[in-house]
Amino acid sequence: MPITGKVSIHGIKYDGAIRRGDDLVDIVIREARKSKFKIRDRDIVILSHTAVSKALGLMVRLADVKPSAVAMSIAERLGRNAELVEVILREAEEIVRMEGGRLITLAKTGLVSANSQVDRSNVGSDEWVVIAPRNPDAIAKKIRKEFKSRGYNVAVVLTDTLGRPFRIGEVNFAMGCSGIKPINDLRGKRDLFGRVLRVKRIAIVDELAAASELVTGSSSEGVIGAIVRGYKYKRGNEGARSLRRPTERDLFI
Amino acid sequence: MPITGKVSIHGIKYDGAIRRGDDLVDIVIREARKSKFKIRDRDIVILSHTAVSKALGLMVRLADVKPSAVAMSIAERLGRNAELVEVILREAEEIVRMEGGRLITLAKTGLVSANSQVDRSNVGSDEWVVIAPRNPDAIAKKIRKEFKSRGYNVAVVLTDTLGRPFRIGEVNFAMGCSGIKPINDLRGKRDLFGRVLRVKRIAIVDELAAASELVTGSSSEGVIGAIVRGYKYKRGNEGARSLRRPTERDLFI
Repeated sequence: MPITGKVSIHGIKYDGAIRRGDDLVDIVIREARKSKFKIRDRDIVILSHTAVSKALGLMVRLADVKPSAVAMSIAERLGRNAELVEVILREAEEIVRMEGGRLITLAKTGLVSANSQVDRSNVGSDEWVVIAPRNPDAIAKKIRKEFKSRGYNVAVVLTDTLGRPFRIGEVNFAMGCSGIKPINDLRGKRDLFGRVLRVKRIAIVDELAAASELVTGSSSEGVIGAIVRGYKYKRGNEGARSLRRPTERDLFI
Repeated sequence: MPITGKVSIHGIKYDGAIRRGDDLVDIVIREARKSKFKIRDRDIVILSHTAVSKALGLMVRLADVKPSAVAMSIAERLGRNAELVEVILREAEEIVRMEGGRLITLAKTGLVSANSQVDRSNVGSDEWVVIAPRNPDAIAKKIRKEFKSRGYNVAVVLTDTLGRPFRIGEVNFAMGCSGIKPINDLRGKRDLFGRVLRVKRIAIVDELAAASELVTGSSSEGVIGAIVRGYKYKRGNEGARSLRRPTERDLFI
């Protein structure tokens, strides 16, 4: 077939505000039913960090935070809020760079980002911040299990929108995943002409994350995630953390 | 609508080998017709670097390349083929890093990658390499114009699959684009609660490129690109080169 089987991406819109304790699986299933959209086995459910973190209650009130001496000194150097810097440091595994008011860290999630993925937007008040789960793969697994217990054998990907080196603009990355091999490993495969392929390991969960952003758009529209259908993937147990490239083997930086 | 309007991604499969002088626009239109797939205005036609470069005849026979003294010395240091290194250097604007047999460059395309995007795979013989067009935005514009002259007002994105810092695995990036604003600029927009959004500029052409890889898969399957339908985008004249982040303002590296 010259035009091949398609992949489709469906936005999950939720008009309410997500609150601590909300059952996201229930919300997704309910919203799908309202649209007569039948979730199928092998669909990929992609959820945004903000929705997941809010449901988990991963919010911190800045007024309750006591900044350490280190946080205060960094905050002063960067010209930033000391309580916020304290939260960023708590969520960081290491500081990658600190300059021009910005703090690039390796977050406990395994992702390199500005501010350890700590998010001031979309929480209903200036004084609260949303933090990412420290174990996003485990959370993805839990969500996948919940879907499965309700009869839906889907894969789950959790995403966040982050900047990246060399390129202007942010894209969606996979923060956690379950039920899908994060990498499509083509090592040893051959192309049409029998040559071993140059491209060897495709980070498909990052591509799925990026694709989902095409329907989630800005968080101002209440789209909490996406369902991807028609993409053939392999099941697997590795999480998205396996995509972290150890610094000492990173030739790009 | 709880499940929102979908975006769909359709692979463009072509069983022949792309040769110098082939009319890619004609090929896409013909393959679509064979499948009774009607290309519509505002569809986004995404084409892989390899198909575009081959149609443009951007291939170099290594036996015809005379390596410079610099190329020979680098090749020796890296333990690599001197003719190949010469081609890589010709396609490079600057060398970013050189280590462990690898050569990371800023290519003339504007992308940072291994080997200036020079591609040994999928060319039919070990002795030829495919190089990327040095002006991918102009090529995208030309392709878009050709589509338009045949009655299809589409946007065009040209992609390549590349490694990136911090993360294992490669993803598809936008190398060139035409008829679509490469960045969705949300600066100044507000979220559900009136807060200015943290995520400010989404690199949508990179997300479209990544999404297209979900149907193009490995080049071993003869899928030369994808058509994305249903994604709402703004028209614009900036190319994908505008996504290049000037090194001096790159806090990540």
